[in-house]
Amino acid sequence: MLLCDIGNTTYHFLDGDMDYKEDAKSFNPSSVKERVFYICVNQYVKQILKPLENWVDLSSYIDISKYYKTMGIDRIMACEAIENGVIVDAGSAITVDIVKGAKFEGGFIYPGIKAMGECYKNISSALEYSFNFEVDLDKMPKNSADAISYGYLKLLQNEVKSYGMNVYLTGGDARELVKIFPSSQVDEILIFRGMKNIIKKADIC
Amino acid sequence: MLLCDIGNTTYHFLDGDMDYKEDAKSFNPSSVKERVFYICVNQYVKQILKPLENWVDLSSYIDISKYYKTMGIDRIMACEAIENGVIVDAGSAITVDIVKGAKFEGGFIYPGIKAMGECYKNISSALEYSFNFEVDLDKMPKNSADAISYGYLKLLQNEVKSYGMNVYLTGGDARELVKIFPSSQVDEILIFRGMKNIIKKADIC
Repeated sequence: MLLCDIGNTTYHFLDGDMDYKEDAKSFNPSSVKERVFYICVNQYVKQILKPLENWVDLSSYIDISKYYKTMGIDRIMACEAIENGVIVDAGSAITVDIVKGAKFEGGFIYPGIKAMGECYKNISSALEYSFNFEVDLDKMPKNSADAISYGYLKLLQNEVKSYGMNVYLTGGDARELVKIFPSSQVDEILIFRGMKNIIKKADIC
Repeated sequence: MLLCDIGNTTYHFLDGDMDYKEDAKSFNPSSVKERVFYICVNQYVKQILKPLENWVDLSSYIDISKYYKTMGIDRIMACEAIENGVIVDAGSAITVDIVKGAKFEGGFIYPGIKAMGECYKNISSALEYSFNFEVDLDKMPKNSADAISYGYLKLLQNEVKSYGMNVYLTGGDARELVKIFPSSQVDEILIFRGMKNIIKKADIC
């Protein structure tokens, strides 16, 4: 079974146990002849895929009443992957979603690492530091670099910890964020697990 | 006594009980003939003020060993204004500083309202919303606009609340932030109070 999670910049495939990425601009989806179950947040690619019969859009199999209209299909699929826990999906934005008894309980959106770094830099060149993921978040900072790392990371850590639930980390920056969520589980193919659950429920494979 | 807090865009004066602002670019400080006690974070204005004998730079009267080298003089003066509490200074950045027994205990830096709005917008046009300061921060959001307001505001509220101290709000956006810190004290001239304390300690007036 071939799965594909399409974002703004890449096609992310899962073929059995192997995952790989293709560039969203240059990849030609009609070169794939087998059936592909996909989700897509890229409006441009969506139009290209529409006429391709072997590309099956899983978003139509979602019970959207469990979520909300403008919620990204990638967030929804991650939620479909777990029964209980908090999902931290660290990409260009960091989305944090709570699932209890397989029910979506709400979530919030925080800037991703790159975006937040740019944000501090745009305020003042004096705030242009790389985030230090090793900073001691149990101590109030007494220098500018730590003051920024703390402002970004401690606030996120605090909020996520406050739920008292298992943390599932996914997305391109999961390996960075695991440093502030040491007891979390990094699962880079969480979204694919959700997609598999939907395929199973819908009995389409 | 005339006090002046000079930022990147304005001269903020306090003359007795009256405060007013002048544009940093167009205002001519040599037009002031009386003695002015000032602090200044604006490198350009600093050079202009140096030769003016009636302009007294209060930064030289600070015991910097209580703070840290790159800490803004405006943050330091706000800390000098209180004995115990947490200061939230909401400007282009939001600085959060803790003072216990008149001792600076550390602080962090978070993006200001405008900068964080830009940050979300730069991630995706789908995240371009104004922050809703009336959002219910005790409920996990189930729509995009609330997901962003929560991401920005709840995380800050949580952290500040966790100190269990009196909150002093100052800076240009204090009136917005008071909505998420309802039991805080808004004090728009907190920095001037710190400046007065320094003048008194140094016995220069």
